[in-house]
Amino acid sequence: MRLEFTKMHGLGNDFLVLDLITQRARLDAAVIRRLADRNFGIGFDQLLVVEAPQQPEVDFRYRIFNADGSEVSQCGNGARCFARFVRDRRLTRKERLRVETASGIIELQIDGKGWVTVDMGKPRLTPAEVPFDAAETAVEYALEVAGRTLQVAAVSMGNPHAVLRVDSVATAPVAELGPLIESHPRFPARVNAGFMEVVNRREIRLRVFERGTGETLACGTGACAAVVAGIRWGLLDRRVTVHLPGGDLDISWPADDASVRMTGPTARVYDGVLRLGDFS
Amino acid sequence: MRLEFTKMHGLGNDFLVLDLITQRARLDAAVIRRLADRNFGIGFDQLLVVEAPQQPEVDFRYRIFNADGSEVSQCGNGARCFARFVRDRRLTRKERLRVETASGIIELQIDGKGWVTVDMGKPRLTPAEVPFDAAETAVEYALEVAGRTLQVAAVSMGNPHAVLRVDSVATAPVAELGPLIESHPRFPARVNAGFMEVVNRREIRLRVFERGTGETLACGTGACAAVVAGIRWGLLDRRVTVHLPGGDLDISWPADDASVRMTGPTARVYDGVLRLGDFS
Repeated sequence: MRLEFTKMHGLGNDFLVLDLITQRARLDAAVIRRLADRNFGIGFDQLLVVEAPQQPEVDFRYRIFNADGSEVSQCGNGARCFARFVRDRRLTRKERLRVETASGIIELQIDGKGWVTVDMGKPRLTPAEVPFDAAETAVEYALEVAGRTLQVAAVSMGNPHAVLRVDSVATAPVAELGPLIESHPRFPARVNAGFMEVVNRREIRLRVFERGTGETLACGTGACAAVVAGIRWGLLDRRVTVHLPGGDLDISWPADDASVRMTGPTARVYDGVLRLGDFS
Repeated sequence: MRLEFTKMHGLGNDFLVLDLITQRARLDAAVIRRLADRNFGIGFDQLLVVEAPQQPEVDFRYRIFNADGSEVSQCGNGARCFARFVRDRRLTRKERLRVETASGIIELQIDGKGWVTVDMGKPRLTPAEVPFDAAETAVEYALEVAGRTLQVAAVSMGNPHAVLRVDSVATAPVAELGPLIESHPRFPARVNAGFMEVVNRREIRLRVFERGTGETLACGTGACAAVVAGIRWGLLDRRVTVHLPGGDLDISWPADDASVRMTGPTARVYDGVLRLGDFS
């Protein structure tokens, strides 16, 4: 079966994007793993699948699969690329979209230059929601890691994040502490670990060790979680530029009861055609 | 500028293949590096460029560029994919091709299943040709590496190879010895390091640490060099199956003054279209 696809990236977080509204395909985990292989297949961090909505007053449904074939619920860079894709492919002419994801409905807004603003939803801060093992909600928690006590914020943006402050992202021990925080027993669903350097009240640098993946070029939900943590610590204004290894994101959190809004670029790398039978 | 391309692989050694007979493009090293990036670009081990021949009685010219933009002279897996490509794209209907490369004219033969036999030329065995620092040609040389004396063969297949025998490729210290052999001062142009386990007279296992790249899934010229070395050592028959991490190659060297013939599979992964301006 002939299948058209588009390869895209958001700050280097790269995606195979498939329109399964005008095309049909059966994708199981084994096929996704073969497609994800960077030598034998297409190669990508995540597969984004665009489907027709299942609920009323929603424009699309979109599903996200990791390179190992597992389905994940949220990906900020992916959401931006998704919005660019449905506009480029003329699946919609709207500039504002309501989209079903596995973690709920998200709202997207696209401008003329391919920059997309994603309503990332409200941060969830109670330990039970993160999930994190603590008696009550706090702006930070003492976490014992490798004999040291780290002060971390615990924030869910649909996926769990631990955020800690460092003096410099350049020298932060991401490779050493990342895996230990990720699999810390107080985070029962494991956690993404963000290392944040506060440059000033409107600017941070951030490196994220992603759950199940390792350090990545640009974690969108991690940027949101870090800004939420920094605002709650009183260190940041409500709108912040986040410098990630792959590029910059603009994050705003207008009020404590508001959604977090993430604005960032998208890039369409190429359009391709594959035969699904080659990967079955 | 819109540019059609095909992504292929030979045993996992993967290629962006460009027809620059029916299309035009200017590719400098910076553009090639951007195209080669696996997150921001297409991603590949080598770029294969198909051009019209510059000499008479030759069907095509083909050029090979590494991911860093440097031009290289020979790639066995690439030659197979090249042959498959020009047939699939109907740039020729011939089953036997004569092709100009930076290391001379090579001959290719394609069968109906996408398997291609490549005439890899005669091995060059004198130290000056490899190049290797030794007084005279021998079937093996004592090479001092990290305080140990290794017995290695030195073979050029258009590029230099050092081949050594190991009891088991599974436990061979490829990551440890590979870089030391690669940059050994007696190989003035550096060298590819092959670790060969002889299974029987018709079968070997091989891992290759490639010059400038590190260990790869399947080095075609390395398979040829290993079989030549094994035949000269009296350990192998004239036709041998080589098990590489990426899959199997069939190598034959009919006589000491004959060319080495390599037969192996090709895979077409997908066809794509990119805009060259996005990478300039």
